[in-house]
Amino acid sequence: MKKYHVAILGATGAVGRAMLASLEERQFPVGQLTLLASPRSAGTTLVFAGKEYPVEAVTPEAFAGVDIALFSPGASVSREYAPAAVSHGAIVIDNSSAFRMDPDIPLVVPEVNPHAVHRHHGIIANPNCSTIQMVVALKPIHDAARIRRVVVSTYQSVSGAGNKAMVELKEQTAAQLSGQDTTPRYFPHPIAFNAIPHIDVFLENGYTKEEMKMVYETHKIMEDDQIAVSPTAVRIPVLIGHSESINVETESHLSPDEARKLWEHAPGVVIVDDPSSNLYPLAIHAAHQDQVLIGRVRQDPTVPNGLNFWIVADNLRKGAATNTVQIAELLVKEGLV
Amino acid sequence: MKKYHVAILGATGAVGRAMLASLEERQFPVGQLTLLASPRSAGTTLVFAGKEYPVEAVTPEAFAGVDIALFSPGASVSREYAPAAVSHGAIVIDNSSAFRMDPDIPLVVPEVNPHAVHRHHGIIANPNCSTIQMVVALKPIHDAARIRRVVVSTYQSVSGAGNKAMVELKEQTAAQLSGQDTTPRYFPHPIAFNAIPHIDVFLENGYTKEEMKMVYETHKIMEDDQIAVSPTAVRIPVLIGHSESINVETESHLSPDEARKLWEHAPGVVIVDDPSSNLYPLAIHAAHQDQVLIGRVRQDPTVPNGLNFWIVADNLRKGAATNTVQIAELLVKEGLV
Repeated sequence: MKKYHVAILGATGAVGRAMLASLEERQFPVGQLTLLASPRSAGTTLVFAGKEYPVEAVTPEAFAGVDIALFSPGASVSREYAPAAVSHGAIVIDNSSAFRMDPDIPLVVPEVNPHAVHRHHGIIANPNCSTIQMVVALKPIHDAARIRRVVVSTYQSVSGAGNKAMVELKEQTAAQLSGQDTTPRYFPHPIAFNAIPHIDVFLENGYTKEEMKMVYETHKIMEDDQIAVSPTAVRIPVLIGHSESINVETESHLSPDEARKLWEHAPGVVIVDDPSSNLYPLAIHAAHQDQVLIGRVRQDPTVPNGLNFWIVADNLRKGAATNTVQIAELLVKEGLV
Repeated sequence: MKKYHVAILGATGAVGRAMLASLEERQFPVGQLTLLASPRSAGTTLVFAGKEYPVEAVTPEAFAGVDIALFSPGASVSREYAPAAVSHGAIVIDNSSAFRMDPDIPLVVPEVNPHAVHRHHGIIANPNCSTIQMVVALKPIHDAARIRRVVVSTYQSVSGAGNKAMVELKEQTAAQLSGQDTTPRYFPHPIAFNAIPHIDVFLENGYTKEEMKMVYETHKIMEDDQIAVSPTAVRIPVLIGHSESINVETESHLSPDEARKLWEHAPGVVIVDDPSSNLYPLAIHAAHQDQVLIGRVRQDPTVPNGLNFWIVADNLRKGAATNTVQIAELLVKEGLV
């Protein structure tokens, strides 16, 4: 079996580490492995398949000989190094927002639009975490009943903002429990025992960039800009796992049972929906696994064809790292690398 | 000025204590004060206006001479003692779910349907916390533009489940931070660093009782059962303060500016809506105050006439205690007591 030279840029970050774990767990055919980070984060070592690898400072030349480069730095670093990686012959799968809305660059969720990888010119973009888990759940519903409108409110964990945000939540919570005040550093307000309706920056229309990503990226991935999406993105004091309360209106009618049947046969989802046994998706259960949990499925009687449901996924895995590795698997399967 | 003999049943609970604080802060004309609780909770003392009062075990006779009885026990205790209190001549303002949907008993939010107090026959019901803050925000919008449909997702604090639930969140969080496991007692799952889409019991239609309260109570308080409400109620690790992500569709068009103008002149609300300065309603700011904070107001472009907004209120105060005291004030003002 052919093996590939894989690089990870941003290897020491929360998503970078999850990429490494995902490559190992999913037994991606890694031949050579190059771990890269900013000069500030370089110098440490990380373990892959029982072996220690040094994390090197990123340079354009570091991508020489690389087949697949998984990127998870900030958008500006992605913009700086993706062309260099591509010019060295690597295919870049980028988890930043840098290229997502570029019409020439595919934005891929393997369960939803796997065919889009074929049009790549060296870079494939990985969608935003909140969008990935939503479109995985929406796709079978859309195919069967055509979605007209989605009203979504998110309950997002702090790990979406990185390792340091997780440390902030833990330290701030401990401080508050012992009656001390702390000054927030990574969030605009204290996140301990609070809910903050503000993720990423505010735009002219009053929505945040995080919210508008859920609109635009959904259109691009679902290849249908007629799906109306009305989003509210909120950060809550959870470490890992984004939850979403989703209301959909469809063109044709779907009962909760019909929707569950569609999801039972859909890739990437697990139905957790037995309220009588207190079973529904929970962030603490979604953490550290790769699938989108769906539950609390019920008819919305306020519209002719409506459903309410609740989905949860690990934002570092399916919302980021796992999806990039799944794209890499797709490239291998389709003979594109 | 006339003073009243006020009793509080359930005085030692989270809401009972907030009732006591609210009576004092709002300078309700309390003459005599009787504090009552279950035999288990009786025996302690509580302070009102600098003076200690004993908490006595409730008996039917304890209501002799009482003008106004604020009730915040469980629904079964309310059902047991409200008739006794009324037969002794007291007006009962009951915060349990026991009488809310009884067509002969007014369900009152003073900012929304103050006139309803006139039809009381001894008992006035106080609505559910999530509903109170929502209808306070919806009322001016409905009056101006007629609300057709509401999709609401809640972010509810643990204090809605009482003092012991607050202790559970704190102890469980501390345990988790030091790597220990704990067994949940008051919630069906761990609430620390989690979001639980399950409040009160599940009904046949897949919704929880908490969710259906938001439908039925909204109809009764707004006196309009044509308002379609599609709710999802979720518990999150916040101590005090319920947040709600609200999407409304109206018959006539309202811009965010027009909505803000309506709220500026509406009772019981404060607009906190300056995203460029990171100002929006937060649970940690709403706690310990009486008003409903409204922000993140923005047009929903996915329907002809739609708005998204975010509201937060102290569930123990406006969501419970303050609203009962406001009803008592209304009784005094209208000469009904």
